[in-house]
Amino acid sequence: MIKIEHIGIAVADLAQATPLYEALLGTPCYKTELVASEHVRTAFFKMGDQKIELLEASKPEGAIAKFVAKKGEGVHHIAFAVEDINQEVQRLKKLGFQVINETPKAGADNKMVVFLHPKSCGGVLVELCQERKDI
Amino acid sequence: MIKIEHIGIAVADLAQATPLYEALLGTPCYKTELVASEHVRTAFFKMGDQKIELLEASKPEGAIAKFVAKKGEGVHHIAFAVEDINQEVQRLKKLGFQVINETPKAGADNKMVVFLHPKSCGGVLVELCQERKDI
Repeated sequence: MIKIEHIGIAVADLAQATPLYEALLGTPCYKTELVASEHVRTAFFKMGDQKIELLEASKPEGAIAKFVAKKGEGVHHIAFAVEDINQEVQRLKKLGFQVINETPKAGADNKMVVFLHPKSCGGVLVELCQERKDI
Repeated sequence: MIKIEHIGIAVADLAQATPLYEALLGTPCYKTELVASEHVRTAFFKMGDQKIELLEASKPEGAIAKFVAKKGEGVHHIAFAVEDINQEVQRLKKLGFQVINETPKAGADNKMVVFLHPKSCGGVLVELCQERKDI
């Protein structure tokens, strides 16, 4: 793990949440992105060398829709930047961490991502992310 | 807000959680601290320019004990470093954010801290923190 890359926050309504977080953080949203494969619409805010990522469900069958329905709005995941995502997955698997998707998949913001199960990470959904080099 | 200062994670058992997070993050815990006034024992991990703070209840009447009993282990708060905590509190109050303790109080790691109510921050317990200059 190199650093915290971003904190993902599940919201019910991105149009309402965006001005709220702009006011709270004192910085404008600099990008929105639909990640169709994950059924989420995202909005990004820069905060020093990290980002805050708001996540709104774009379809009711997605993970964010289920999360908000069950737990309400709030922190959804912590994402850590890694140097070599495949190597980090192997390191963590050997240590007993449960990997949700062993093969990295395309996430928002030009990243390849792997999720670790909260059950093996003390209740925290952990995302590993590495900048995509192929695009 | 200058940057994310740390992410606070509530844990049931610090002795179990510390080696788990050391393995996950790949970095040793560099400090533990009892914050008696808040009824918490904390453990800190450096992650780039940010910290991960684990929080274990030191007394059953504390906020962390209640959080873990109600929601289980997981992310408890996001802390942002601010330049001038009193000025930031006034800015946020004017914008309609609900401040839990308007007068900054002593937190862990040599900080003065103010919490914002999750109800006004999209479900996220937000901590503002400023380095103490008096000690």
